[in-house]
Amino acid sequence: MNTVGILVVGNEILDGVTLDTNTQWMINKLKPLNYIVAETITVRDDTTEIAKALNRMMDDGLGLIITTGGLGPTYDDMTLKGVAEAFSLPLAVNPEALAIVERQYRAFHRAGVVDSAEITEARRKMAAFPEGAEPLDNKAGGAPGVMLRREGALIVSLPGVPSELKWIFQNPLHPILTDASEGHYTERIINLSARDESMLAPLIDEANKLEPDVYIKSMVKSMVDNEKGHVIRLWISCHGDEMKEIQAKVNRVADFLVDLAENNLT
Amino acid sequence: MNTVGILVVGNEILDGVTLDTNTQWMINKLKPLNYIVAETITVRDDTTEIAKALNRMMDDGLGLIITTGGLGPTYDDMTLKGVAEAFSLPLAVNPEALAIVERQYRAFHRAGVVDSAEITEARRKMAAFPEGAEPLDNKAGGAPGVMLRREGALIVSLPGVPSELKWIFQNPLHPILTDASEGHYTERIINLSARDESMLAPLIDEANKLEPDVYIKSMVKSMVDNEKGHVIRLWISCHGDEMKEIQAKVNRVADFLVDLAENNLT
Repeated sequence: MNTVGILVVGNEILDGVTLDTNTQWMINKLKPLNYIVAETITVRDDTTEIAKALNRMMDDGLGLIITTGGLGPTYDDMTLKGVAEAFSLPLAVNPEALAIVERQYRAFHRAGVVDSAEITEARRKMAAFPEGAEPLDNKAGGAPGVMLRREGALIVSLPGVPSELKWIFQNPLHPILTDASEGHYTERIINLSARDESMLAPLIDEANKLEPDVYIKSMVKSMVDNEKGHVIRLWISCHGDEMKEIQAKVNRVADFLVDLAENNLT
Repeated sequence: MNTVGILVVGNEILDGVTLDTNTQWMINKLKPLNYIVAETITVRDDTTEIAKALNRMMDDGLGLIITTGGLGPTYDDMTLKGVAEAFSLPLAVNPEALAIVERQYRAFHRAGVVDSAEITEARRKMAAFPEGAEPLDNKAGGAPGVMLRREGALIVSLPGVPSELKWIFQNPLHPILTDASEGHYTERIINLSARDESMLAPLIDEANKLEPDVYIKSMVKSMVDNEKGHVIRLWISCHGDEMKEIQAKVNRVADFLVDLAENNLT
């Protein structure tokens, strides 16, 4: 299984100023590639906290760790310092990364969005990479993405600005993740009418026995503010080597539950 | 400082089916009480993973840990098992909690939203508390909140359904958190026109020297897809014992930055 950890860096999120939507967006891009997100951690703009969270994710044996945020030019963008500290690597300007930063600021200058294309210390900082890391091109902003391979894990750092994160994910990163992925994933979501979720539990137990590889999750709606009545959303998913096989298992469980529900819940 | 960790439990979030908005909502309710969220962790519906995350938060010395999700009647609601495992406590039916569950299901039955008010095993499970935990009333759903004091920390477990989480937070929990809180918090958000964020860094450094207790965060907008020009949002906040004092510090920094920006950035 391709297990993933997502580390979100940014005081603006932990102080409630910004709602993190990058994580859900990435999860839904990772699912079709059969990556399963095991955990996410959000920390403040603090080198030590970033490094600690990365070390915890490495301890958890994840194959892919994606960090978001903290790659910008300002003093409080500390993600690469945290990655370097986590793996005891020195930071040094990566020439390839610097070329990307220079190209982007020339483009911003031509477009009239910055006064000068000069590579100030603040801008050069975006190319100061942990030793051994490779840049991921960014045509949507100033800061390149960062890719580092350590102890069998791939650690990818992306900017927090959604348009930049999405550009890097969909362009240089997507083919890399596709190559690194193993196996397949499929899911089906069904809606059942039931009087209440607690009466569904025994039926789900039966379905679990039918196909132990298949994961069944019931998504409760509040019984108080739910006006659509008592529709319970069941979401049925499976990971495996053969797409046809896992699709058959998921369909078998879904059909089984629909029949059971009709006979028992209504 | 009142440092907080939020532990979000639920496969539906890590599989991208549901966007977690509870965390941001709670952060914005905790801020005026001077609670600062140090980290959030999201894990799957897995007792061991829940317990591990709780132990990590305890290691981090947080004063308040709030878990969300996994309190419902179904087999995959495992949060209280995880809390019990984290603190090596047995689970036993809490009579006060059971009375809440019974009252709620009688109400649901009267309202015609469940067929029977009978306390099935699945429903009784919602009152199976870690030893020493106290219930928090829930008039918006079936599962009471859970409050446990261990090693100087307060561990609160809330349902994941937003209407239930909000009801418990705003009713039984809010006065408890108000009593437990120390000190004050204030913030101001200002917008500066700047050619680009990297030119702002030296000005922020100066402002930091002016008032070291004041935290200044610049929220970058993408330079490519930002149509509103180059407005940079600066968010200036401070924690302290005296509200008047921290308000004065924040205002001093804000006015200082507005003047500096007018003279240097435009």
